[in-house]
Amino acid sequence: MALNRKTTETIKVDRLNQKIALEEAVGSPYFIAHGTHPPTPMITGMKDGLPPYNIPFLEDIDDRLNNVEKGLESMDASGITYATVSLTCPGVEGILDPDEAVELARKTNDAIYELYVKSHPTRFGLFCSVAMKKPEEAAKELERAVKVLGAKGALINGFTNIDKDDVSNVRYLDDPVCEPFWKKLSELDSCPNLSQAAYGFGIETAGHSLRIMCSGILDRYKNVQIILGHCAESLPFLVHRIDHRMAIGIRGNNGPYKKSMMYYLQNNFYATLAGVRRESTMRNTIDEMGESRVLFSVDYPYESNEDAADWFDGMQMNENTRKAIGWENAKRIFKLT
Amino acid sequence: MALNRKTTETIKVDRLNQKIALEEAVGSPYFIAHGTHPPTPMITGMKDGLPPYNIPFLEDIDDRLNNVEKGLESMDASGITYATVSLTCPGVEGILDPDEAVELARKTNDAIYELYVKSHPTRFGLFCSVAMKKPEEAAKELERAVKVLGAKGALINGFTNIDKDDVSNVRYLDDPVCEPFWKKLSELDSCPNLSQAAYGFGIETAGHSLRIMCSGILDRYKNVQIILGHCAESLPFLVHRIDHRMAIGIRGNNGPYKKSMMYYLQNNFYATLAGVRRESTMRNTIDEMGESRVLFSVDYPYESNEDAADWFDGMQMNENTRKAIGWENAKRIFKLT
Amino acid sequence: MALNRKTTETIKVDRLNQKIALEEAVGSPYFIAHGTHPPTPMITGMKDGLPPYNIPFLEDIDDRLNNVEKGLESMDASGITYATVSLTCPGVEGILDPDEAVELARKTNDAIYELYVKSHPTRFGLFCSVAMKKPEEAAKELERAVKVLGAKGALINGFTNIDKDDVSNVRYLDDPVCEPFWKKLSELDSCPNLSQAAYGFGIETAGHSLRIMCSGILDRYKNVQIILGHCAESLPFLVHRIDHRMAIGIRGNNGPYKKSMMYYLQNNFYATLAGVRRESTMRNTIDEMGESRVLFSVDYPYESNEDAADWFDGMQMNENTRKAIGWENAKRIFKLT
Amino acid sequence: MALNRKTTETIKVDRLNQKIALEEAVGSPYFIAHGTHPPTPMITGMKDGLPPYNIPFLEDIDDRLNNVEKGLESMDASGITYATVSLTCPGVEGILDPDEAVELARKTNDAIYELYVKSHPTRFGLFCSVAMKKPEEAAKELERAVKVLGAKGALINGFTNIDKDDVSNVRYLDDPVCEPFWKKLSELDSCPNLSQAAYGFGIETAGHSLRIMCSGILDRYKNVQIILGHCAESLPFLVHRIDHRMAIGIRGNNGPYKKSMMYYLQNNFYATLAGVRRESTMRNTIDEMGESRVLFSVDYPYESNEDAADWFDGMQMNENTRKAIGWENAKRIFKLT
Repeated sequence: MALNRKTTETIKVDRLNQKIALEEAVGSPYFIAHGTHPPTPMITGMKDGLPPYNIPFLEDIDDRLNNVEKGLESMDASGITYATVSLTCPGVEGILDPDEAVELARKTNDAIYELYVKSHPTRFGLFCSVAMKKPEEAAKELERAVKVLGAKGALINGFTNIDKDDVSNVRYLDDPVCEPFWKKLSELDSCPNLSQAAYGFGIETAGHSLRIMCSGILDRYKNVQIILGHCAESLPFLVHRIDHRMAIGIRGNNGPYKKSMMYYLQNNFYATLAGVRRESTMRNTIDEMGESRVLFSVDYPYESNEDAADWFDGMQMNENTRKAIGWENAKRIFKLT
Repeated sequence: MALNRKTTETIKVDRLNQKIALEEAVGSPYFIAHGTHPPTPMITGMKDGLPPYNIPFLEDIDDRLNNVEKGLESMDASGITYATVSLTCPGVEGILDPDEAVELARKTNDAIYELYVKSHPTRFGLFCSVAMKKPEEAAKELERAVKVLGAKGALINGFTNIDKDDVSNVRYLDDPVCEPFWKKLSELDSCPNLSQAAYGFGIETAGHSLRIMCSGILDRYKNVQIILGHCAESLPFLVHRIDHRMAIGIRGNNGPYKKSMMYYLQNNFYATLAGVRRESTMRNTIDEMGESRVLFSVDYPYESNEDAADWFDGMQMNENTRKAIGWENAKRIFKLT
Repeated sequence: MALNRKTTETIKVDRLNQKIALEEAVGSPYFIAHGTHPPTPMITGMKDGLPPYNIPFLEDIDDRLNNVEKGLESMDASGITYATVSLTCPGVEGILDPDEAVELARKTNDAIYELYVKSHPTRFGLFCSVAMKKPEEAAKELERAVKVLGAKGALINGFTNIDKDDVSNVRYLDDPVCEPFWKKLSELDSCPNLSQAAYGFGIETAGHSLRIMCSGILDRYKNVQIILGHCAESLPFLVHRIDHRMAIGIRGNNGPYKKSMMYYLQNNFYATLAGVRRESTMRNTIDEMGESRVLFSVDYPYESNEDAADWFDGMQMNENTRKAIGWENAKRIFKLT
Repeated sequence: MALNRKTTETIKVDRLNQKIALEEAVGSPYFIAHGTHPPTPMITGMKDGLPPYNIPFLEDIDDRLNNVEKGLESMDASGITYATVSLTCPGVEGILDPDEAVELARKTNDAIYELYVKSHPTRFGLFCSVAMKKPEEAAKELERAVKVLGAKGALINGFTNIDKDDVSNVRYLDDPVCEPFWKKLSELDSCPNLSQAAYGFGIETAGHSLRIMCSGILDRYKNVQIILGHCAESLPFLVHRIDHRMAIGIRGNNGPYKKSMMYYLQNNFYATLAGVRRESTMRNTIDEMGESRVLFSVDYPYESNEDAADWFDGMQMNENTRKAIGWENAKRIFKLT
């Protein structure tokens, strides 16, 4: 902090070494998880038959989805002590055959557990995959993963394709057939559930979240806690307005919910910083959810651990809040030691 | 401010009397503007054949859309000196026949001008309607409204239906055929354009805005200034992330834009407080756009002038910023005296 | 929240009923606590022989300093479940004879305990008085008050007069002779200590705090936790600058401290909202200390419980943070149930 | 912004090249300005006869106080286009003989004008020194400096010593004998006045400012605009509380002021960032004064231009506000082109 008369036009970052990240994506040895299975043309981002990112960038990501050592190296360079891994998107949600989805979810969970959690128990935890095409099976696999593999919850990649022939035919997570899954989540006692945006800058995930709120699921299963990436996909910014409009509507018209959307956001959701590099967005999220419900994360390998750590560690903020967001909240929620 | 030992469990609001509101909706004497023309079933909000709001509430709104005196009374009670009126949504965008749209836009503009602007020149200004089904005609009507009726710009209600037989067939505002309209907007020198969300909590408007940014329109017509309601529909919260993802994409893949989305947001957009009653949402918007680009508004009669004024006037904030947002910015932008 | 077309120019406040307040002042049956003992002319605030406040106002305060029932009534009207009481300022610090100070501290603690804590154990706790003129005795009385009367700590009203003949001759709390007191505070394990501004808008208290930080007391007794009123008397706003200047000074020149002033502020201090009615001041305090170190308080009867509750309960903020500041932090720190 | 898998644990800063700084200190060729004249022992900071900073550090500052080229070089490296210079503290306020003060103020103003303003008119402006021991003479010199040397106002270093034999005998700036100076400031039409903290982390300057507010000077001379360094010395954080206490006092007891202290702060004061490197302190200042009243500054050579620029240019904030604070406000206030 001493007086310095020269400038390198850079600001030094003091690396914080206890951070926990909650949205690290990995691949499956059994199928190509970043696409539907079998493959269908991607819906968005392609131009003249080419992907939206350049080839070396995509190859690097592909490599990192399956390279435990590179992940650990990157975590070490970034001061990330511990990360929960989960299957990249659309993952099991993109498997078009229901029975295959059930089977591949289980096999993939076992494989990820072996490679990451069992081999490096102090570094990795697991959010399991579940086949939401068969919600009863999803509930069973969730229970197995939590009890046998020590999973911290399930990660669901937004919509589930429910029609082999029409990939645009999808199911929302508040669909009544999903009830057994929510029931099981609740029985397993506040077991968090990572629900991640597949595309559209979070609009999809925000839509799922609002529907879950309106459906009364969070009244029936009060224990359920949902983790949203990207500072909860704009919900902290806009949910007051949704409540405001719904307050003048006819009660019950939008579902059997009992509380305000803001209430659910503040009591049943956590927001991660995955993909966020903007202080005012983080501040708005803390302003609306409280510092106990905001969690550091990266979205590796789609984001750089190193860049995210430079941003988070270098920000001017009080250390009590930084530690709470950086690792203390995650330790409390997931009962890590 | 004196010491008070009793409580009425209310907080007194000192009414500020110079406020300017920019999103006051009115009806047309020529057609039912809050629906398509001819009518088609509403897409959302109906349940068991009933509207989402109760009948007295809807009747009150219907009345106020066409009642100048009630509007003035409400403005007086709320400390709103001046308001710009515009046709309620979907307005002309919902007229399915192109020629009819052109004609009704012109006739409606004249009618609103007579009823509001000419009769109460110190209280009302106009954002005209234009028929975006025929962008050349829209450009002509914009010019006429600005030059003859003193319009402050045009209000466009999101999508324009472009197919009589399929109302879901719509046109985005960055469609190449819209170019003449943007060109005219620019020629008329930084003439603001109110683009309002029809539904979906601003997702539609945010989508239009991002497409306009990506299309290069704001590079070709640098004067164009766009006003977005509802604190710019979450763009202040999330646009950094869009920039962040686009920065790792292939340049040009998403359009011929030259600057970042954040740059356009800060240089070509204004955000109004229409429909917003949340301080942290307003703060986030000021944080990302600067206090010179945030404007008080209400969204009357869908929102209550009185409630909005109580919120805005009663908030704890510095008076310099409150005045800038309350009226000084609007006076500067619209050259009001 | 429903649409309202009339205005009463007030905003309704929903009363929160579990608040805890930490700076409620009471009198002593044994001496006039709001002046020196024996009386000396007040140093500031008098004009033409008259006090700075009007007589009915002063009489009301005098009454309330000794009226348990009025206090309870006011707490009920304000949603304050529990309050810690302490002797008003300058209290024992203004007793000029050391032995008398020791005796009156003990007798006053017993009296306040009987009147408030013993009679209303679910409503009141105690911060005891101690005679800092005799720090060894202060340590003893602190221990007795904590162990016998269940005191939550001691409240010290800034400077201690140390000279009968010259009231301007005062002792700072980092004076080496105070060491036994700090040692005892630490032994009693993170027993909080309310240190309140006597005058000068907190400059005195900020001065004490900075000297305590520089003295190394907080390195020698890491358990010590100090509660400051008035959002920590501007320290959140300015302490970064003190650190910044000290960083370019000669290490050790200002004392044997081991950490930054910001570190001590974030680890050894709590800030109360006593006397604060400004959201941005509260936000700055949360920004610098974290929401776990900010505590609701009033400063009754010098401030109005009712007004403070209207402000705190009516503010737009997330409920998680409001509860943390309103009562959860106090419950955790003072092990209340 | 591209994805980066390595970390240098630094954050790159994009240098902004139009910044204006308002508190650059320089020396006088006629006397040692950073001490009283004749010298008296320093009041604070010395330990065992040594200064609080190390010798090379002090030598560097001494050199830079009189080295135009080093100043320009440092400004270039920091993206500071333009700076207003003023005599370092205590400057003329520390000259104990009144007539000598009058003479040295004039001669020093001429010398600084020659060295800085005349030689580098596009890079430097001047805040003149005035002898507040003789307020009539101060008014005259202010007028001469403004009209002949193009001075932007006067800089006053807090207290003025008014007694040769007792340096602790000082005059506050609201002393009635100062009235001619305030009158002249007002006549010269909103000519700003830099009032800088000499010591005590701004407590002195905050005290002067509050006394000036209470004295009615700002009611009698509404044009007067006062620039305070260090984010207005905590006034944005605490002035609401001063108003709150004064509101329950006897009107007029503290002076003939007509408005609240907050009103004066928002209408008659500017706050600079001199010496500030903390985002939340800057945010609180913007929150209370509005972005039009906050001004970038450094406090060179006591602070590093380069460090200050790295902080200011590197902060995550919207560019509209950054430009307003960085240079646009200064250009408007000082009519720079």
